[in-house]
Amino acid sequence: MTTSQARPAEIGPREARQAFRGGLSVATSGWAPGFTQANLITVPVEYAYDVLLFAQRNPKPCPVLDVTDAGSATTALGDGIDLRTDFPGYRVYRDGEVVDEPTDVVDHWRDDLVSFLIGCSFTFEDALERGGVPVRHRVAGTNVPMFRTSIEARSAGRMAGPTVVSMRSIPAAQVARAVEITARFPNMHGTPLHIGDPAAIGIADVTRPDYGDAPIVEPGDVPVFWACGVTPQAAVVAARLPFAIAHAPGQMLITDGTDDQWNA
Amino acid sequence: MTTSQARPAEIGPREARQAFRGGLSVATSGWAPGFTQANLITVPVEYAYDVLLFAQRNPKPCPVLDVTDAGSATTALGDGIDLRTDFPGYRVYRDGEVVDEPTDVVDHWRDDLVSFLIGCSFTFEDALERGGVPVRHRVAGTNVPMFRTSIEARSAGRMAGPTVVSMRSIPAAQVARAVEITARFPNMHGTPLHIGDPAAIGIADVTRPDYGDAPIVEPGDVPVFWACGVTPQAAVVAARLPFAIAHAPGQMLITDGTDDQWNA
Repeated sequence: MTTSQARPAEIGPREARQAFRGGLSVATSGWAPGFTQANLITVPVEYAYDVLLFAQRNPKPCPVLDVTDAGSATTALGDGIDLRTDFPGYRVYRDGEVVDEPTDVVDHWRDDLVSFLIGCSFTFEDALERGGVPVRHRVAGTNVPMFRTSIEARSAGRMAGPTVVSMRSIPAAQVARAVEITARFPNMHGTPLHIGDPAAIGIADVTRPDYGDAPIVEPGDVPVFWACGVTPQAAVVAARLPFAIAHAPGQMLITDGTDDQWNA
Repeated sequence: MTTSQARPAEIGPREARQAFRGGLSVATSGWAPGFTQANLITVPVEYAYDVLLFAQRNPKPCPVLDVTDAGSATTALGDGIDLRTDFPGYRVYRDGEVVDEPTDVVDHWRDDLVSFLIGCSFTFEDALERGGVPVRHRVAGTNVPMFRTSIEARSAGRMAGPTVVSMRSIPAAQVARAVEITARFPNMHGTPLHIGDPAAIGIADVTRPDYGDAPIVEPGDVPVFWACGVTPQAAVVAARLPFAIAHAPGQMLITDGTDDQWNA
């Protein structure tokens, strides 16, 4: 089997990582259903305490699944994972500006880098669908829309910035069900941060996300917003950290962990 | 009203802290029911990352409620709290040895100290009692028994050591109920780490705890063990950190937060 012929939903985590390692660059929502996906933020060790404290102070956007030792590109989240190659895409930041968007970061790697793996809402989309809640961007095969909000994250040292959210349009009658289901995943952002009224959290135009693709909205849908693991990336930009690496928004690490193991 | 005449259960968090600030040194289980209690670990800023990472890697014993900026003795957990005086008792460690057990640490305070406030199982004892599960050490007015176990905590930098547990003897028929109730408090150690068979986690004699008072066991009771916030204190000892301050086991900070606000 070649991964290019298989449907993402039929591919296991190891095969998916192999494909991404080989250069395939795609949004990972819907890939390897049932396996936990993770965001990445990698910084020089001198900023590691600020990032970890930022995560502790902002647990909804930043549920930490694993932290590496300095220089290490492996993680407890899966056998044989190489953090430098196994995401579909990366963003490399210098002084808060994106300087490169490669499919691997082997050439950018340094011995003083500490990586944080952070829970991702893609993990609970499966449970939403199985629970009868439609996930519109998965049906359409697009990336989830993400927005910077007016909700300031609690700062930690140099790390400060807006809370970023992912949005899913959900039929009004199923919004409560979506809350109920996502409450079972506290390490994957858990319950929504905000339901309805995008303007109340500083989103002027819900059709124009800051990251990802435009939302698909059906009549009778309510916009529901979950805290997003891109939040530390926004803080790296706002703080103009000298150097950082992150995943490309929507392009996650697929770990060997199963969603069920994180259930509350 | 003077606190010495009131029953602990009738005293609010602010009055309790005032009494402890005045020198009263007691175990705080049963005090100010409904208000969140917290463990303390305070270290020089150069060890703060190790402690925070240790907590991230050991979330059951070390659910972090707040982290102070270096030198600060205040916390977001309550108005006017002074971390140097508002615990009933402290332990001061040098090179892993207890060098002082004062009722305040004003004279030991330094500008480079970072404090970690960690959730405490006393917080859910109230819910246990309201749910019909007897909490024997509360009825007897003794301190909860705590044990070092053979379960190694995941290490982080210099921080490494055994997982410490608190034990409550619970009637066999109510053990499931105790699990159910404590599952609602993931930030207060959550569900038990171990149920029955103390020898399986390296506890040779359940009548002789490493911290606190001997357990009260009634016929038909099962020993139930919860991860304990004394765990980082055990790691400070094992790692022989040059300097640390902690609460005296069982003598917690009573915060202004209510138990309900942490409910899952």
